[in-house]
This record gives sequence, C-alpha cells and structure tokens, in this order.
Amino acid sequence: MEPRPAAPRPRLCDSLGADQTPSASTLNAARAEARPAGRRAPAVAAVLPAGGSGERMGVPTPKQFCPVLERPLISYTLQALERVCWIKDIVVAVTGENMEAMKGIIQKYQHQRISLVEAGVTRHRSIFNGLKALAGDQPDSKLSKPEVVIIHDAVRPFVEEDVLLKVVTAAKEYGAAGAIRPLVSTVISPSADGCLDHSLERARHRASEMPQAFLFDVIYEAYQQCSDYDLEFGTECLQLALKYGHIKAKLVEGSPDLWKVTYKRDLYAAESIIKERISQHICLVMDTKDENHVGHRLEEVLKDELNHVKVTSRLPCHTGRDLDQIMSEQCYSYVCVNVMTSDFEEIRKLVDMLEESNLSILYPVVVISVYFLDYKSVPFDQKMENLMQIREYAKEVKKRNILLCGLLIYYPQVFYPPQDPSCLT
Amino acid sequence: MEPRPAAPRPRLCDSLGADQTPSASTLNAARAEARPAGRRAPAVAAVLPAGGSGERMGVPTPKQFCPVLERPLISYTLQALERVCWIKDIVVAVTGENMEAMKGIIQKYQHQRISLVEAGVTRHRSIFNGLKALAGDQPDSKLSKPEVVIIHDAVRPFVEEDVLLKVVTAAKEYGAAGAIRPLVSTVISPSADGCLDHSLERARHRASEMPQAFLFDVIYEAYQQCSDYDLEFGTECLQLALKYGHIKAKLVEGSPDLWKVTYKRDLYAAESIIKERISQHICLVMDTKDENHVGHRLEEVLKDELNHVKVTSRLPCHTGRDLDQIMSEQCYSYVCVNVMTSDFEEIRKLVDMLEESNLSILYPVVVISVYFLDYKSVPFDQKMENLMQIREYAKEVKKRNILLCGLLIYYPQVFYPPQDPSCLT
Repeated sequence: MEPRPAAPRPRLCDSLGADQTPSASTLNAARAEARPAGRRAPAVAAVLPAGGSGERMGVPTPKQFCPVLERPLISYTLQALERVCWIKDIVVAVTGENMEAMKGIIQKYQHQRISLVEAGVTRHRSIFNGLKALAGDQPDSKLSKPEVVIIHDAVRPFVEEDVLLKVVTAAKEYGAAGAIRPLVSTVISPSADGCLDHSLERARHRASEMPQAFLFDVIYEAYQQCSDYDLEFGTECLQLALKYGHIKAKLVEGSPDLWKVTYKRDLYAAESIIKERISQHICLVMDTKDENHVGHRLEEVLKDELNHVKVTSRLPCHTGRDLDQIMSEQCYSYVCVNVMTSDFEEIRKLVDMLEESNLSILYPVVVISVYFLDYKSVPFDQKMENLMQIREYAKEVKKRNILLCGLLIYYPQVFYPPQDPSCLT
Repeated sequence: MEPRPAAPRPRLCDSLGADQTPSASTLNAARAEARPAGRRAPAVAAVLPAGGSGERMGVPTPKQFCPVLERPLISYTLQALERVCWIKDIVVAVTGENMEAMKGIIQKYQHQRISLVEAGVTRHRSIFNGLKALAGDQPDSKLSKPEVVIIHDAVRPFVEEDVLLKVVTAAKEYGAAGAIRPLVSTVISPSADGCLDHSLERARHRASEMPQAFLFDVIYEAYQQCSDYDLEFGTECLQLALKYGHIKAKLVEGSPDLWKVTYKRDLYAAESIIKERISQHICLVMDTKDENHVGHRLEEVLKDELNHVKVTSRLPCHTGRDLDQIMSEQCYSYVCVNVMTSDFEEIRKLVDMLEESNLSILYPVVVISVYFLDYKSVPFDQKMENLMQIREYAKEVKKRNILLCGLLIYYPQVFYPPQDPSCLT
C-alpha cells in the first residue's frame, strides 16, 4: 500500500491555481490493473456537481455537506470514487460560499486526485463547468482531456466500482450510458386542474440514476450546443446526448445501492448502512496456529455473526503482507489473540501499521488485545502490570482515532480444551 | 382515555367468523369530532393490501412483517390508521400462510377495528378482496358498506391524519383522490434494445403515492368491471377509477413521510425515525410549582434539546387529567422531580397510570424518578432505603415493559440557586 501524503491539497482549476499532478506511471499501472480483458482502457475522469442547496432535506446545510457519523456525506462519495484507481481526475463543482469548506474536507480526509471548480446556478451549469475544466482548453488548467467522463452525484455515496466500470465500458461503445433502476411508485401525469390526466405503465419506465458516463467529446459538444432553457430546466444528461449528439445512451441496470440521499430519512439510512458495513468486518490476529485453541473457537463464533471474518497469523512470515491486504480492504475492527506471548511490543507493531495505513482518518479503528493466561503459570500481578501499560498507551493512540482496549482472560488451562488432552498442563 | 380491552381479537371475514362490532355511539362521537367544518362526515373504512412477498428487500420475511425495533412494520401502519378515530373499519388482506402471524400481531399489540381477509396473488386482487368484504353483500360479513374507502399500503407506517382527511374529503367531492410526491429521479422510457428512447420532463410528472381514497361505489364497480389483465399487471387504483368510472382523481400533495418501505435501507430509516420521535417527547412531572426550582431549570435545558417537553404538576387537582392527555399523545419518557416529598407512593401511582394507558404495549416506557435532597435535613441512610425499594419495584415493572430508574441528588441547598436567596436554608 502506497502511503498517502500527509496533507494533500485539492488542485484548483482556472483562477484557483494548481499544485499537484498525478504521476503518469502510477496511472498507467492503475489502468492496466483495471483494464477489461481484451480492450484498451480509456482515460477516465469524473465530474461531481455539488452545488445543490438541499432544500428537500428540510435542513439548512446542503445535503452533500450533512454529517454522517460526523463526516460530511460528500467525503464518502469522494472515497467511493478515489478507491477506483482508474479514475484519474475527479472534478467537484461547489458554490463559492462552500469552496473553503470543501477544501477543508479534502484536506481533513486526505482525498486524492480532486480538482475544484465553481458551481453554476443549476445542476447542468455545474456539470458544464466541470467539463470545461477537463476540456484542456483553459489556459492554466493542469487537467488533461479524458476519453470518457463519468458524471455522478455527490449524494450517492455507495456507488461501487462494478457499476462505474459498466457505464464506462458501455459509454466507450455507445457514446453514452447511464444506470437505471425499476420505479418504486407509479408515475402519473397531472392535468392543469390538479387531477389525474393519465398514469404511466410502470413496467415500461425506469428511474434514471447515476453514475452516467459519456465519451467526453459527445457530452462536451452537447453542452456547448444546448440552449439556456436546457441549462436552466433540464435534469437529464442522457437526454442532452440524445438531443444534440443523436446518441441513444445504453441503459445499465444498477443495484439498490445507487440511491440518492434526498430526505432526512436517507441520512439515517446512510448512517445505518455505514455502521453495518464497518461492524461486519473483523480481523483476528492470532499468535498461534494451533487449530484447537480458543482463538479458533472465537473465529467460528464470529463467522456465525459477521459477514467478513479475516484471520491472520502473527508469525513473522505472514503478518506484514496479510495485514496490509486486510487494512486496504477497509477493516476497522481487530481482535488480537495472545496465547504464546504476553509481549506488549506486538500490539505496538499492529497499532503502528494501522497508523501508517491512514485508516483511522475516515473512521475510528477498534483494537482489542486479548491475553489468555493460565493462572497456574503466570503471576497475576505481573500480567496486570502489562495491562496497565496498555491503558496508558491506549490514551495516547486515542488521539489518532484508534481505540485500543486490553482484555485479560485468566483461566485454569486444565479445563480447556476438553477434547484435546495434549493441551492439558 | 378509554381503556383498551385486555386482548382484542381481529374480526375475520367470510368463513373466518366474526366476534366484535364497533359501538355506534363511539363512532358517531368520533366522526363528529373529526368532521370538516360545515360538511357531513362520510362513513370511512380502509383497505390495506399486505400480501406482498417483499422480494425487493432482499430478505426472506415479507417487508410488512420485518421487525422495526422488534415490532413488525405493519403494526406501526395499523397504529397510524387506528389512531384516526373516524376510520371505522380497517380491512387487511394477508396471504393464508401469514394469517396466523397476523392474528398474533393484532392480539399482541392490541390493534382495534381490524378485519382480515385472504390476499389475492396480486396487489389489485388483494384490494378487491378487501372491498368485497366491505361491500356488505357477503352473507356472513359483519362489516357495513362505507361511503368512502381509503386504500393504503402496509409498508407506509408514517401516514398522518391530515393527509388521510385530505384524500377522503377530495374523494367525497371528486369520486377519487390520491397523494402524490415530486419525482426524485428523472423517469425514462427504454427502447427494446436497452437504450434510451426518451426521457420524461420531470416537472410534468409526479410519483403516485398512498393513501388514496374513493367513493366506495366508484372503486368497487371499477374492480368488478376490470379485466384479468388489469388485475394481474395493473399497479394504479386511480387509473382503474379513470378507465372504468371515468373519474378524474383529485391529486393531493403529500409530505415526505408518505414514503414506502421498499429496501433494507428503508427499514434502517424507519427505525431511526421512530427512535427519534420517541426520544423527542419527554414529560416532566413536578411536585412543586416553585418557578426557581431545579426542576424548572431542567425544563429549560430540555427545551433546548428536545422538540416536545411537557410539564405537569403533581398537585392533586392537575395530575390525572394532564397525564392522561400526555400519555394519549404517545409520550414514552417521564422524569419525575421530587422536591417536596420523598414519598415512594407517588411513583407507584404514575406507574399504575402508565400501565392502565397500555402505552408500554408498543414501546418501552422510561421513567426516571429524581429525588433532590438537602444533605443537612434528611439522613442519607433513610433516603437510600427508599431508593432500594424503587430498585425492587423496578424489577417488577420491567416485566410490563416499563423501565424505572431512581436517582438521588444529595446536595447542599446553600449553593442553590445562587440567584434567589429566598431558597437558602
């Protein structure tokens, strides 16, 4: 895992200046990795209009800046996009009054590959501003024109790489592509007097969701040609590609995850989903490979309760690589099972790795260090002293958003495990 | 507040038998209360199709039976409807396999005025079965034909009386009416090859939501006339009224609360909304009217934090009526401030009232009894003895879902309140 720079700053387009360019070799490696079999991977950028006022939410803060577990919603969306290594640039359009707040978010949560542009008064105008920044025809722009551009919403934080790849691949083939979902409610058309004129057959219609993707030239030309009326009142980018580029966009079935945070209840839902995701991943770090040990029993119990239980051994040949992998998969809960050793240094090593991984910038990381101890073989006082050391250390690492807790299980080994007499003392 | 019968049973239509009829005088009184000014209130019933399998939820339990805070979702919707006293009958259509579970829910949560019918294989067929039960032309039906029928979804638990009254009033005038909401996403029409054919102008369309209401004869005749194709594939009752009754339904703007629980994330949202609602209501029961007392300070602090802070006095002339009113408004959190008395009997009286109100059938009720005590005037031991009694009593009432907690604040009165020397000892 490549360590992140300590405090990345967003690139600022146009008059805002620029201070960072991506390394060409990193991008090429990333693209090669994500390349669909047998095809050349296109250069991809993303535009995120984030200039909305969030009036439907019924709260004064625009919804993209509403906190979810104390972190602004847009930060989750940025995380979802920057996790996808083949998206080389992410252009976010924010209003002038939110520009400083947005810079603060990028710095605090160490977002990468972000450029900021000023939002327009409508969604279409914001997207257009984002496209202009990518077009490479601005004198001081450091961005290069992509082959395909993704358009996504700042308030759809759960977008997966899978659907992003599908719309990009389809856009390369068809010129335009967008995610769709079945309609939840029947759609009707009211007459002028507020009565039902007709209802639409639900099976013949779909909700147009995000992400969408376009050949850059197709959507940029459409925006350049489209009328002020389109820019003021239009809601659908696919429609612009159809109207001005005569491109019939490919429609891609999306998962329910693509939903847009619109109302206050959606913030509640987002919070619960994030909590569930974090709490469903756990990593057990064992210092023994003994299959009969209590650590492996714990593994069995946890596997019944949780979706993702990873186990890694603390043996020198394994630890580093395995743990790097597990940390990069966004695991936030660690249980260290110490049987063979009561060595406090081991837990320091793990915490150091966690700090280096920068995981705790986004959420608190929980580490429980469990010491199993045969009460016959180790004096209680000595063990308690170790635990007290952990307590002091825990205070220190809490400042870095790592919640460490020591647990001493002092048991008579003669009772455990009854099936295996070889373990009896 | 009228005490509920200890264990109400649902009326079961047709072959299922019947065992309860509403009292005519109660209904008339209820109708008079809810009557829109200057109009005769129509007789109103509701039909709730609840035969769906919930396949979109991605869980094996049909969504209407999914637990939200350990209580099935449909129970919340029934509660929302039965709270409206002018709805005289609520007919729920459930599949044969869920019939016993539904009876259990009605009994456990003491739902009132419910009749069960067997669901059909589609939503329209379930509604039709509900209407047949209300038509009064079944030989053994105890239900009488209403003038207006509301159709609602079992999975829209947050429906308010306000919108129900609006659709019923409009249905009486126009023959049919339904709640609508602005579209969240643009609606598109795909072509046969999975590409965009055209997109619909978002401003000219609306999502058709529930509740809807109809003159009973209009919708019943529409269902009798409609084709098997309509019954199998139709989704919109308003469309049936238009097609077969030539009735242009009046469309009523609904609030965001009308949303339908469709996906797992919606269950999370429902749970958070319910938790928030319960925790935003608190009642302070004071045994003093002294405006300078700490109880009133507590009231000020709570009013900054919570939406609904009710205060009632424990003076004999007030307690009963005020508390009845507060309990009927679904307040689940009580803080009793005891300054004048350390009488343990007072808290017993409150708990008795709570038990009688049946509030704790739906959610746990929390009661915190706080004793303020000048350490100079009362011996500590004596007070602790009282608290220990509360602890025993708390164990007893916990079985009835009332969580009682005693708190002793032992303070030197000389420090309180500094602004008012009259309170100094």
